[in-house]
Amino acid sequence: MHYSSDFLAAHAHLREAAQARRDGLLQAGLYNEGTAGALMTSEYSSLDNGLSASQAIDMLRREAADAETIYQSYVLDERRNVLGTVSLRELILAAPDQPIEQIMQRRVICVATGTAQEQVARLIREHDLLAVPVLDELARLVGIVTCDDALDVVVEEATEDFHKGALITTHIGNLRDATVGLLYRKRVLWLVLLVFGNLFSGAGIAAFEETISAHIALVFFLPLLVDSGGNAGAQSATLMVRGIATGEVMMRDWLRMLGRECGVALALGATMAVAVASLGVLRGGPEIALIVASSMLVIVLIGSLIGMSLPFMFTRLKLDPATASGPLVTSIADAVGVLIYFGIASQVLDI
Amino acid sequence: MHYSSDFLAAHAHLREAAQARRDGLLQAGLYNEGTAGALMTSEYSSLDNGLSASQAIDMLRREAADAETIYQSYVLDERRNVLGTVSLRELILAAPDQPIEQIMQRRVICVATGTAQEQVARLIREHDLLAVPVLDELARLVGIVTCDDALDVVVEEATEDFHKGALITTHIGNLRDATVGLLYRKRVLWLVLLVFGNLFSGAGIAAFEETISAHIALVFFLPLLVDSGGNAGAQSATLMVRGIATGEVMMRDWLRMLGRECGVALALGATMAVAVASLGVLRGGPEIALIVASSMLVIVLIGSLIGMSLPFMFTRLKLDPATASGPLVTSIADAVGVLIYFGIASQVLDI
Repeated sequence: MHYSSDFLAAHAHLREAAQARRDGLLQAGLYNEGTAGALMTSEYSSLDNGLSASQAIDMLRREAADAETIYQSYVLDERRNVLGTVSLRELILAAPDQPIEQIMQRRVICVATGTAQEQVARLIREHDLLAVPVLDELARLVGIVTCDDALDVVVEEATEDFHKGALITTHIGNLRDATVGLLYRKRVLWLVLLVFGNLFSGAGIAAFEETISAHIALVFFLPLLVDSGGNAGAQSATLMVRGIATGEVMMRDWLRMLGRECGVALALGATMAVAVASLGVLRGGPEIALIVASSMLVIVLIGSLIGMSLPFMFTRLKLDPATASGPLVTSIADAVGVLIYFGIASQVLDI
Repeated sequence: MHYSSDFLAAHAHLREAAQARRDGLLQAGLYNEGTAGALMTSEYSSLDNGLSASQAIDMLRREAADAETIYQSYVLDERRNVLGTVSLRELILAAPDQPIEQIMQRRVICVATGTAQEQVARLIREHDLLAVPVLDELARLVGIVTCDDALDVVVEEATEDFHKGALITTHIGNLRDATVGLLYRKRVLWLVLLVFGNLFSGAGIAAFEETISAHIALVFFLPLLVDSGGNAGAQSATLMVRGIATGEVMMRDWLRMLGRECGVALALGATMAVAVASLGVLRGGPEIALIVASSMLVIVLIGSLIGMSLPFMFTRLKLDPATASGPLVTSIADAVGVLIYFGIASQVLDI
């Protein structure tokens, strides 16, 4: 870890920052929360180029007290650029006088200081890494993120996604110790917004007041139909949100997913239409059964398509898709469901 | 790894099973899915008691080709009971002739073959372990679970919890490649069940048909009030489900949580009551405003209490609490909301 003199002259303040980083003082302030830079430790093990395996082990022995891990080390040149990586296992298995250049892996999976922490965790998980090196904008090694950091990130991110899916605005910390005031602040915003959002459902119902007054049996099926659209939508949205979060689903898959979703939703809607048609006959006769069954089919289809599209739309708009998996999808699907149901009912009944 | 002869005589079949396990053939069949036994690898590094540090390193060098990790090793007696654990870092730092009994940690965090995999992952995460040893019913070492296995478990469990929260019955595998038929089967059961569950809401509305006919403006506020209870309930349920999953919240915390939830829900309900009261005055006069505001307060309170209690109840009944975080809570809160709203309305209006 030696600097070349011209580099030092030009970047004296950077050097100080790097020193402070090693002291663990400034790290939190230098990098944005949620990035590799904020997550990494600067206590990595580095090896000078040109050592033999046994010399490398001796060097690690001296570094061991300060290093987060000595099991994965990085071979650096004088500018702290990474030439390769070598595991302690490889060093132990090598002949003692073998040069580390012959042992080390030259293709190193690395991330930048600004890389999102969930992306870092995904790399560690997919490649079964003990640690991933973090490079600055000049490709110099500034730290590592280890597997146990990744474990914390994955748990934290999943928790945040869960909370966002229930429209809880931000991170709450340990739930057990959260105060009434904190919980109130995290939950109130979206609840009040959704009250006003639900005015659309109310206005939809008000627009069909005459039809409802004339056929009060329609109200019996209102919660059932409207909720079904919301439930189907919540399922689709949750599948997509989680697929995007784990990296299984990409933006470019949207069109293909949409086609498949139509097939699934039509099959689900048809099954549920049969279920409610029988109730419709019992409660209001064949005309009501027809209205209720056809409404169910359309509502489940539209609800599912809204549910699967919103997370993609949120991602495209640089919003967090996790917000689009719970009550928000349900509320939108509800309002649409009211319009579909009474729209179909007034068409059939008012002729 | 030697067996005592009397043990062998009594447990010959167990020995064969252990051998097959080492061959990696029977592992999937021997242990239940989701347990440490099914997750572990039997390719751990073990050390004989009585070695020096340098002899231990030599022994690990010979085992390295077969072992999942040589960074954490277990010192075993002749019955494969764990005497202690030692890391390669500790061996490298020790004087070459130091006996490993002096280096090893004697307090070893272990799990049983039947331990739930999320519990294993939690231990690895909380204690920053590279691996955790898995013991059979005779406290013999049979395998290890490593940090990267834990990472996979945490992602998989979070995904399952997300899906269950949207009432998607079981694991879907890679969403991108799931077929229409598979998705239909995973989603249809709960959707149809909830259709029948929503009959309670419908029946509640039907019971108040007279009140509704006389005061049709009440229908305008129906989706808004009913949804608010569901939304508040979904928030509470999600917080609890996730708190239980991450181990932040225990069963014994229920009563304290219930008290706090009352405070939060009353504050939320009061805020939302103010919001809808103004709408009530505009739409139906002061009497409607009073009904709508007081209904909102009660509905949000009851919805929140249902939302926070269900996950605990599911846990107590040995059901998965994650099922209780989405549409199920919403549907139950909906039905209760209908009864509260029209109950209050008929009391106020029919005097």
